Amino acid sequence: MTTRLAPVAISMGDPTGVGPEIIVRALAARPGLEAVVYGDPDVLAAAARACGAAVPARMVSTGRHGPHAPGAPTAASGAAQVAALVAAVDAVVDGACSALCTAPIHKQSAHAAGFAYPGHTEYLAHRAGDPPHAMMLTAARPGALRVVLATTHVALARVPALLSPALIARTIVLCARALVADFGLEAPRIAVCGLNPHAGEAGAFGREEAEVIAPAMALARQELAGLGLGPVRLDGPAVPDAVFRAAVTGAHDAVVCQYHDQGLIPFKLLHFDDGVNVTIGLPFVRTSPDHGTAHDIAGRGVVRPDSFVAALDMAAAMAARRATRAR
Amino acid sequence: MTTRLAPVAISMGDPTGVGPEIIVRALAARPGLEAVVYGDPDVLAAAARACGAAVPARMVSTGRHGPHAPGAPTAASGAAQVAALVAAVDAVVDGACSALCTAPIHKQSAHAAGFAYPGHTEYLAHRAGDPPHAMMLTAARPGALRVVLATTHVALARVPALLSPALIARTIVLCARALVADFGLEAPRIAVCGLNPHAGEAGAFGREEAEVIAPAMALARQELAGLGLGPVRLDGPAVPDAVFRAAVTGAHDAVVCQYHDQGLIPFKLLHFDDGVNVTIGLPFVRTSPDHGTAHDIAGRGVVRPDSFVAALDMAAAMAARRATRAR
Repeated sequence: MTTRLAPVAISMGDPTGVGPEIIVRALAARPGLEAVVYGDPDVLAAAARACGAAVPARMVSTGRHGPHAPGAPTAASGAAQVAALVAAVDAVVDGACSALCTAPIHKQSAHAAGFAYPGHTEYLAHRAGDPPHAMMLTAARPGALRVVLATTHVALARVPALLSPALIARTIVLCARALVADFGLEAPRIAVCGLNPHAGEAGAFGREEAEVIAPAMALARQELAGLGLGPVRLDGPAVPDAVFRAAVTGAHDAVVCQYHDQGLIPFKLLHFDDGVNVTIGLPFVRTSPDHGTAHDIAGRGVVRPDSFVAALDMAAAMAARRATRAR
Repeated sequence: MTTRLAPVAISMGDPTGVGPEIIVRALAARPGLEAVVYGDPDVLAAAARACGAAVPARMVSTGRHGPHAPGAPTAASGAAQVAALVAAVDAVVDGACSALCTAPIHKQSAHAAGFAYPGHTEYLAHRAGDPPHAMMLTAARPGALRVVLATTHVALARVPALLSPALIARTIVLCARALVADFGLEAPRIAVCGLNPHAGEAGAFGREEAEVIAPAMALARQELAGLGLGPVRLDGPAVPDAVFRAAVTGAHDAVVCQYHDQGLIPFKLLHFDDGVNVTIGLPFVRTSPDHGTAHDIAGRGVVRPDSFVAALDMAAAMAARRATRAR
């Protein structure tokens, strides 16, 4: 049986941001990649002109909502990005596409256009039936750091009360499943980060390691044993200021982090240009670049597509691994 | 007038840890450096044998408390390290030495020997009359990150309540004074880190940036204006997951961090082997390596002295700058 993998669905993103430009540049850098771009053909043509690149070979028009001015989002540009996103998600939900790679949206204009979700992730989870899911940051190059977040966009003061054995165990299990199914690891080694300096130094600087994180690891080990994933090694609660160095030198395949900046500070230091955001736990593959709409440089043809190229590469690779496992 | 700079005082540290070994190795790597080692001559001779290095050319005996077994601290080894520290501090307080570089102590055995301070820093501050002081982490090589901590060894859950405009402003001022007096910068550029993800994203994920950190920066600007230091630029409240990259690419000379791991996670990722701990705000120069007693490898002659070499280099350079300014 020969199977041709379905293409990657790309959503155009905010037409007043850099999304259309990173798309045309990334596709120029990856001529062999099978992809369909969902969006406004006028916007994509303008981006191609700005960048001196070709218009995407395969496009599905989601309507013409323009004109749009770079850096100046409106309700119409908000509607354009939402239409592109909805159609691209339809394509992965229906199976017409094998993975979803989203260009950045502008949240306020999406809301002005009636989009009822805080961001991409909540909408995608809704479309998938709200399964447990989590945010992973990584990059396509070998040896890239992988971090998975137990909590994300909340004030630091709220983090300790939000952490529970159930939440952290769920995050660990999502991480393990993704490492096996999407990244092809047979025996993943996951570090679970402590919350406090020196991982609490035996309780001197906080008790969450003993009272929340270690129980979460025990719970995760129980759950993992029932999943038949194969061996998964959990290390921790790990000392936060040592574990990322250990990970990049090969001791861990991923680090489960307790709060946004615990993971994002080291991640962005190492992967400022090529970071990829992966939503793990969804029934379809979803990646996005690790940057926003960058209105300050939109429309000028100067944006670097590195992060979007990496997101596309990773989406295609993850989809191929899922297809291989499914056969 | 010709002035010969007084030597650097080195305290031996825990005789059952790697301190004596990093000292003999570092002095072998820096034959021209003027330094006096305070400690037990038997311990230093044993370390020299273990490392195949010379015994230090200049030693001041602080008594023989041994024998000591590597990795096995006792009240006697605790007394030995305290005697070495007290004598080395006497030397910088009296002016016989120009700077203090401390090898790691073992806290529990120091306490068993009657040492009444949580660690080095509290004792040094006491000897200096308890001036405002702070912890800076940096390295001796060009382009090294410099982080200064507003809070240090406390549970993460306690950090938000500990932060105040007065504390953060004091930390900023200490940082600015050190950059001018100890690091020779004429117009330091200091980034002041936010507390929350995305620096709070305009209040969506926390209000500390608006209510505590921005007022601290205003207060620090007032205080700095009265000090006659020259121009000091403060940037912030800065986005935590972007500011360290900006700093290492040259945009900031130092980053004031709100909590231990905010500074230590990126610092140790970049400076795992050559980190130096500098106590800023003291009347004398004090540096130490950014690692502990490493009992697991003590006595075997295998420890890397890189961090101690960097601490010695930095102590000597800081003392030279202070002497130049004083003339």
